[in-house]
Amino acid sequence: MKYEDKLHKFMIIKEILERRSVREYKSDDVSEELITEIIKAGQFAPTACNKKTLEFVVVRNQEAKKQIFEIVGQDFIIEAPVLIIPLVNKEISPCPMRDLAAATENMLLQATALGLGTVWKSLMPEWESGVKKIIEAPENFQAINIIVVGFAKNKLEAHSDADFASQKIHVEKW
Amino acid sequence: MKYEDKLHKFMIIKEILERRSVREYKSDDVSEELITEIIKAGQFAPTACNKKTLEFVVVRNQEAKKQIFEIVGQDFIIEAPVLIIPLVNKEISPCPMRDLAAATENMLLQATALGLGTVWKSLMPEWESGVKKIIEAPENFQAINIIVVGFAKNKLEAHSDADFASQKIHVEKW
Repeated sequence: MKYEDKLHKFMIIKEILERRSVREYKSDDVSEELITEIIKAGQFAPTACNKKTLEFVVVRNQEAKKQIFEIVGQDFIIEAPVLIIPLVNKEISPCPMRDLAAATENMLLQATALGLGTVWKSLMPEWESGVKKIIEAPENFQAINIIVVGFAKNKLEAHSDADFASQKIHVEKW
Repeated sequence: MKYEDKLHKFMIIKEILERRSVREYKSDDVSEELITEIIKAGQFAPTACNKKTLEFVVVRNQEAKKQIFEIVGQDFIIEAPVLIIPLVNKEISPCPMRDLAAATENMLLQATALGLGTVWKSLMPEWESGVKKIIEAPENFQAINIIVVGFAKNKLEAHSDADFASQKIHVEKW
């Protein structure tokens, strides 16, 4: 095998390296097409027992963002042009949190592929019902986070081997 | 913008399209280098409050796999050459399940990039302590799944727009 082929073979997926938590956003809008691609990637994530109950609310309205900000804080909630809130039917999914987290990771990576910045804003359990009320989500659906989407103000450094801790790999037993 | 560039721009990440749950594996072994790359990708996933407490146990020993099979069932546990069990310190992470699921999704995608098949085998809460005992994981670490890794017996079809449900996107409100 040629050296370049070997290098390529072992390379970490570009978007996994480049995905960073972006906390400062430009005011530039993000097109509906890009948001659809991000949500599509979320729908292609595995769900527990393949129940596929994920739904997604896209918030751009400044008034709604202000209401959400009043619950969860963080200036980026208002500054970023788009918030995506994924929800899972907790009466059907055997593991809503797992479904939400896997889909979210796909969405963060897909946004990175499209040149967008994101941050995974967790919802404290006591914030969930207030946020669900603003977006009029049904009682039987669970939300654990808000995916903040926009163009990053500054380019953040990609992950590298400096972030890798080989001592956290245990062979056969801890 | 040229049509090809536009097409490229809106394309879903190849590994997100190609990741499928593989339940039949060849007996071919998977090198340590490839497993390291997969775990590295897992370590580059975001963790709640950036606590980064993920650890990974790699099981290849046939006797240990049989013991795990006796708890969780599924022939692929014995047939696939490698099991990776990610664990998170539940005393430190504010959201262990989220950390585990996001890292797992990165690992499934990275394995796909390396030409490997995977399946996300969930651990029922009543199975967790038995599996942790086999791998000698500490009490304060949580496991929610086993990542099964190997070469797929059959190539499974990639995701496509047929798997995409646009009606699950809600604008501003549900």
